[in-house]
Amino acid sequence: MIKEKADKDSFQSGASSEETSKGKVSLVGAGPGDPDLLTRRAWKRLRTADVVLYDSLTTNDLIDEIPENTEKVDVGKRQPDPMTQEQINELMKNKAEKGEHVVRLKSGDPTVFGRGGEETEHLAEHEIEFETVAGISSVLAAATESGIPLTHRDYSSNLMIVTGHQASEKRGSTVDWEAVADTVIAGGTVIILMGVAKLPEIVQALQDYGVSKETPAGMVEKATWDSEQVITGTLETIVSKRDKQNIEPPAVTIVGSVVNIRDSVSDYLIK
Amino acid sequence: MIKEKADKDSFQSGASSEETSKGKVSLVGAGPGDPDLLTRRAWKRLRTADVVLYDSLTTNDLIDEIPENTEKVDVGKRQPDPMTQEQINELMKNKAEKGEHVVRLKSGDPTVFGRGGEETEHLAEHEIEFETVAGISSVLAAATESGIPLTHRDYSSNLMIVTGHQASEKRGSTVDWEAVADTVIAGGTVIILMGVAKLPEIVQALQDYGVSKETPAGMVEKATWDSEQVITGTLETIVSKRDKQNIEPPAVTIVGSVVNIRDSVSDYLIK
Repeated sequence: MIKEKADKDSFQSGASSEETSKGKVSLVGAGPGDPDLLTRRAWKRLRTADVVLYDSLTTNDLIDEIPENTEKVDVGKRQPDPMTQEQINELMKNKAEKGEHVVRLKSGDPTVFGRGGEETEHLAEHEIEFETVAGISSVLAAATESGIPLTHRDYSSNLMIVTGHQASEKRGSTVDWEAVADTVIAGGTVIILMGVAKLPEIVQALQDYGVSKETPAGMVEKATWDSEQVITGTLETIVSKRDKQNIEPPAVTIVGSVVNIRDSVSDYLIK
Repeated sequence: MIKEKADKDSFQSGASSEETSKGKVSLVGAGPGDPDLLTRRAWKRLRTADVVLYDSLTTNDLIDEIPENTEKVDVGKRQPDPMTQEQINELMKNKAEKGEHVVRLKSGDPTVFGRGGEETEHLAEHEIEFETVAGISSVLAAATESGIPLTHRDYSSNLMIVTGHQASEKRGSTVDWEAVADTVIAGGTVIILMGVAKLPEIVQALQDYGVSKETPAGMVEKATWDSEQVITGTLETIVSKRDKQNIEPPAVTIVGSVVNIRDSVSDYLIK
């Protein structure tokens, strides 16, 4: 296999180093799903990797683009017998120690809710060099696909991104829902990842902390996928709209005045 | 000029439509600076546009890649006689009404603090079709370049992104600094954009609202540029470190425990 010249002088794929030396790991953001939203650097790495370890949310279209003779391993959590994070860390390390250039392909961006930090810590502990290639987070894709800007001069000058899967344990939760509510009340935008199942509890928590039930809310399911769906409403109506449209994970929920902008622009948004 | 076939069936560049019809506008994220961090879709749009309107933070390396016979207009705010936002909106609209395919190239991502929302509203008002192509926000680039993950299972399960340029008007500010402080106290990560000049006031505001002066803080200036700089410290030391290293805009400030991860991984981070 002919390896493309690395675009960073300091970056050489493991396979082109001496056989005795360690390989390297590229943590690469796969973006939200549409293979066209991969960065050019991410694509270079996928073309030259010895092995690609990929997540459940990586689309088949993207995996199909990786050269045939590259080893591809599905390390996603949605398999019948999924690997633990520790097993993924070990596999990544072992491959690199054999001198291979490992691409750890993670949906969205590797630094946002993807346990990328744990993976880099594991590599550093074992003295394996790594780089991180940013990806289009599902947060950004939800905004571009729905026509909802995340900030707007007239409404919103801060934004908060939280996970929703811990909503029910309001006391033990690592998310401070009162701070989230205060952000909405101050005119900010709140983006909730992994919040489809717990949406009723999230909506209730925000209202308990003083957010108006009239506050605009929207959901973007599978942004950039063929099966993408967008719904908008208010905190009062969003749960029933979720049920009616059968919104399923992965989906991004957006709360704040910016959601209203979709109504004025969506007729002209090219899909 | 040979136009590449559009990758979305529904997307046709204005120039390939009938002369009488309106053109279209692509709001395209240029990413943080390094042209390799452009998405593949963004690059397709730049190759086929009739005209590109670009910002001050777009790097020359990227502009140099755009085909020679494409019209390129610097609409950045750092020129001697910069255009107003209204003038940019009008130029974009007028070009599209002539049937041209306009690429509005915006540094980072078009939906985050870039007035992209105002631009799409203007286009919709004038019945001009548009699309938005997501870009790597400087927030994500700061994380990947510094080795600081934005979230981490052990420390941080929410993140807040705010602008720092209004810090001084604590009462009139559209940023709720108390909610920002609460996010840090709850173990979250706070990312401050445009906060280099007002850093002393921001640090003071956070401490006034109860954040410990020992809280880790880092700054990434010009992430992915040749002149990139990274500093880390605490809320107590970050201002003097900013001065010592002469950190200048554009820079991203990160506050929270995740900043400490840089210390354990940076020796193995490929630059």
